[in-house]
Amino acid sequence: MEKSDANSNLVVDQKPVLTTSPLPASKKIYVEGRTPDVRVPMREITLSPTHTANNIEENRPFLVYDSSGPFTDPTVAVDIREGLVPHRLPWIINRGDVEHLPAVSSEYGKRRASDPSLDPIRFQKIRKPLRAKTGMNVTQMHYAKQGIITPEMEYIAIRENQMSEAVRLESPLGAQHPGVAWGASIPSVITPEFVRAEVARGRAIIPLNINHPESEPMVIGRNFLVKINANIGNSAISSSIEEEVEKMIWATRWGSDTVMDLSTGKNIHETREWILRNSPVPIGTVPIYQALEKVHGKIEELTWEIYRDTLIEQAEQGVDYFTIHAGVLLRYIPLTAKRAAGIVSRGGSILAKWCLSHHKENFLYTHFEEICEIMKAYDVSFSLGDGLRPGAIADANDAAQFGELETLGELTKIAWKHDVQTMIEGPGHVPMQMIQINMEKQLKECHEAPFYTLGPLTTDIAPGYDHITSGIGAAMIGWFGCAMLCYVTPKEHLGLPDKEDVKAGVITYKIAAHAADLAKGHPGAQARDNALSKARFEFRWEDQFNLSLDPETAKSFHDETLPAERAKVAHFCSMCGPHFCSMKITEDVRAYAAQKGIDEQSALISGMNEKSEEFKKQGLEIYR
Amino acid sequence: MEKSDANSNLVVDQKPVLTTSPLPASKKIYVEGRTPDVRVPMREITLSPTHTANNIEENRPFLVYDSSGPFTDPTVAVDIREGLVPHRLPWIINRGDVEHLPAVSSEYGKRRASDPSLDPIRFQKIRKPLRAKTGMNVTQMHYAKQGIITPEMEYIAIRENQMSEAVRLESPLGAQHPGVAWGASIPSVITPEFVRAEVARGRAIIPLNINHPESEPMVIGRNFLVKINANIGNSAISSSIEEEVEKMIWATRWGSDTVMDLSTGKNIHETREWILRNSPVPIGTVPIYQALEKVHGKIEELTWEIYRDTLIEQAEQGVDYFTIHAGVLLRYIPLTAKRAAGIVSRGGSILAKWCLSHHKENFLYTHFEEICEIMKAYDVSFSLGDGLRPGAIADANDAAQFGELETLGELTKIAWKHDVQTMIEGPGHVPMQMIQINMEKQLKECHEAPFYTLGPLTTDIAPGYDHITSGIGAAMIGWFGCAMLCYVTPKEHLGLPDKEDVKAGVITYKIAAHAADLAKGHPGAQARDNALSKARFEFRWEDQFNLSLDPETAKSFHDETLPAERAKVAHFCSMCGPHFCSMKITEDVRAYAAQKGIDEQSALISGMNEKSEEFKKQGLEIYR
Repeated sequence: MEKSDANSNLVVDQKPVLTTSPLPASKKIYVEGRTPDVRVPMREITLSPTHTANNIEENRPFLVYDSSGPFTDPTVAVDIREGLVPHRLPWIINRGDVEHLPAVSSEYGKRRASDPSLDPIRFQKIRKPLRAKTGMNVTQMHYAKQGIITPEMEYIAIRENQMSEAVRLESPLGAQHPGVAWGASIPSVITPEFVRAEVARGRAIIPLNINHPESEPMVIGRNFLVKINANIGNSAISSSIEEEVEKMIWATRWGSDTVMDLSTGKNIHETREWILRNSPVPIGTVPIYQALEKVHGKIEELTWEIYRDTLIEQAEQGVDYFTIHAGVLLRYIPLTAKRAAGIVSRGGSILAKWCLSHHKENFLYTHFEEICEIMKAYDVSFSLGDGLRPGAIADANDAAQFGELETLGELTKIAWKHDVQTMIEGPGHVPMQMIQINMEKQLKECHEAPFYTLGPLTTDIAPGYDHITSGIGAAMIGWFGCAMLCYVTPKEHLGLPDKEDVKAGVITYKIAAHAADLAKGHPGAQARDNALSKARFEFRWEDQFNLSLDPETAKSFHDETLPAERAKVAHFCSMCGPHFCSMKITEDVRAYAAQKGIDEQSALISGMNEKSEEFKKQGLEIYR
Repeated sequence: MEKSDANSNLVVDQKPVLTTSPLPASKKIYVEGRTPDVRVPMREITLSPTHTANNIEENRPFLVYDSSGPFTDPTVAVDIREGLVPHRLPWIINRGDVEHLPAVSSEYGKRRASDPSLDPIRFQKIRKPLRAKTGMNVTQMHYAKQGIITPEMEYIAIRENQMSEAVRLESPLGAQHPGVAWGASIPSVITPEFVRAEVARGRAIIPLNINHPESEPMVIGRNFLVKINANIGNSAISSSIEEEVEKMIWATRWGSDTVMDLSTGKNIHETREWILRNSPVPIGTVPIYQALEKVHGKIEELTWEIYRDTLIEQAEQGVDYFTIHAGVLLRYIPLTAKRAAGIVSRGGSILAKWCLSHHKENFLYTHFEEICEIMKAYDVSFSLGDGLRPGAIADANDAAQFGELETLGELTKIAWKHDVQTMIEGPGHVPMQMIQINMEKQLKECHEAPFYTLGPLTTDIAPGYDHITSGIGAAMIGWFGCAMLCYVTPKEHLGLPDKEDVKAGVITYKIAAHAADLAKGHPGAQARDNALSKARFEFRWEDQFNLSLDPETAKSFHDETLPAERAKVAHFCSMCGPHFCSMKITEDVRAYAAQKGIDEQSALISGMNEKSEEFKKQGLEIYR
């Protein structure tokens, strides 16, 4: 391909650099359901034994939730030209309510398919699209409402439940502080029936398009583990297809539960195909971006027909959820005029401008039931967009934002009437004291449909650190009841995230989500904290690294100060040196008590100098 | 000096590399009090004008709180061999209650002073120490209780107040959401009398040793701006004197309000002198660390006499607050035996081991009134240490922690009887749902003495990111009433922080403190958010960078994507490219309304395409 070619930034004919190694000390295991075709991946972290004064105690391997798909399983040969195994396809087919279309049915999809100039960049092994048979509804919500427990629901129950079941057998790792759940109703064990009931009630969604059978089922709802989303996507300014696929792999490697493809540049149809065929997690998009591309960025020229064709195009590719800004109503738009930051949502501002140009109501609102018809034919979930979210602290929780939220609540009812799964997007920039008000209003207005928020950012004054300004708000709103947290990277407001930014965003949001799970008292959530703290306390450095969200960074930070291999078995921390290790002193206290076989209190109030001196020498030797 | 020499890591005879440039677009100004010797430094950020469709509007310079001292003032020649100007000395002397001692009075201080081998590393221009005249009490609390408003209090009132006064004149930057203050009583304007009253009541402290007259007065209390502390200090493993001085300069440059010198290695007496003579912020220490050095790390050999001599040694150098673990009582120690992480405070574990070795009550507790006598002779403030703070989520808010906290409350009463200023240290590792319980208990047990917390870390599972796990907790506890937040760096639990880690910790904690100020509704706190969002919305890129907590990082992140100078005047963001800039669209809406001179609502519901097209072309050109 020539450099000046429209496709010059695509390098699919070179071996792309994909990150496929397992995380340290980790291996992928699969837990089977009642039938062997339900195989739920988990990551098993091998731990080293605990050395006490008298003996050696094994530490059982620790299981963690694993969103990384086959890319971290060395037993699976992954070729992104082939795509992942469509493991869910038999379940979909067996339900008997879908049909294979002879070809894609969107006009745009047909044009792209028949354009030979796209051959070099096209994903080659495209399956024929599936669609619900006429009159059928293929959403998980539809099944759920009929009392059907799908294999997807069983899969999810095993997946959500893994840690809590495992660790309860293993005291004291299962010990946990009571949570404060703010009205969430988290059972001690997640059953398939519970998953079904939550989906039926609309309190959780399973974003799984029938045309994305490669995806591993997961659930988004306030009574499940808090999930996170990472945004990827090329823009007019940079990025290539392979970079986008690698970004998706990279984001899921570090724990992203879903990925949104927000591409706005060239060949976004083809980029999306590559991502979907290789993604083990649900993929979300904002279809208005592509619709706008189709009218060359001229907002006034957007039409329902173009948009509708885009929905079908993307639904037949397999997009699992669509951000649809159907709540940006004409009457709310003037409410933004005096805002500090106006309308900051891209989708929101596009729709606002369209409404004003035509002096008509938002066509996503007026055509909402038609959209529902499309969604339920493929099981695409709604992510009802907050086009009027606040883009500055000053604009938080204002009339425009809350007006739109009320409309999203009305639309939720309509979507549910069609059994279309629905979640609600949220802000934005909100100071801490206003976060819970926002969460409570969402729960009330939207009838507990899952909330999916960007941050919120708790201050505007730290561009370059907005993963942190928003991580604070994300942790809090997750605690208060938010079901999924959309990450913010350090580059927010400033530039396009690179891989390190994506990782920083994902890890920050995994922290926020986990802190929220802990605070809600999610059963078993504290087990990983307990396991890591036990490793830390016992100077099992490698285990401490391996149990952490980012073993590589933890290890490299440690090694900057104390690089020697044997320092990782040292019974002191690098921060304090051998004289001052407080953990060592505490360990001495216990060791002495155990050794003398006397009760702890008496042990503690005697001396314990021998052991201490012994360790001190050891430590010094290792250090030298 | 030979490499094998004890002092080989000190390089004071080389020109040290100190960071002294002002921050971008910033200059130091001094606001005078009622008398010209009260000169309060502030940082003035110059802003560029706003270009609207019809005219150019100036943006007034923006003032921010400035903790960086003379190092960021190019009009002041700083030589760390000379130390900073002891500007507060006349105030101290004029009160007539202090005397110059002929020489240092601690035994250790005398030995160090008379040791010629230390000459090469000694700070040369040491003043004779000051001490209260016999029977006098020279604490700010003592003056406050007598109704005296000191120059320090006036200085602080101006310093705390600057932003709120300035911005209220300047709508809409002064607009602000109501806060939720959880019982704090923050007045709309801080007066010197308010500062006095808060200090008299014990609800705030002014940590200012009479032997640290170089320090710029600041206040710590729940009714003032939330402050942050950075820890520095060499350890047995690395670091030199000049590195420590530069770390102090570096930490205050980015906004640290106080600095704790936690050195545990060699020559900590001399290192501390260099830091104090050059520090514009209060310096805190943990004297037990040095006392332990004096007995070669043998905890059992610690005595009250050695400790007392250390307090006097450090008080005469000018340390502003001492962490004293007087609440680690014998009866609490066994409560830690079943903890996940035992005793993680270094000071706490030293004292615990001492108590157990001797089977005696903690000598800091039994000698507490004698300690108060020393504190009030120099105006050293207590930072009552939480030696039993939880070091793991599992140990949060347990009997050991809360037992100690109750004892710290009793000790607060004793300290106040002596008019010794007192704050209380807090945890540690605490999940979100348990943070407010901890804060409320501290307020109750310690009679609203300022709380000073490490984090708290809201999960254990992210070593390498503990600035973030703890920044979440810090923001929350700051909101709930904590007065000062002790930073945590990314290296926590793993290694020694370097300069980048110190900066990451400080910026994260400035975010937490500011988010807390916003949430409490601190008057004027939102002005900086408003100013930055206005700059962002108006595409004043340089102003957005310069108003941020870290202009360098913001600018460099922007430039990674769009390096061209003219991209910084581009009317679109790098994230979206020229077609999709939502801010531009909103701006167009307003511009059109203003241009046509019609009311906003009508403007909004008409079109605004001309302007949009014009900007679009501009944007594309700039981009190309």
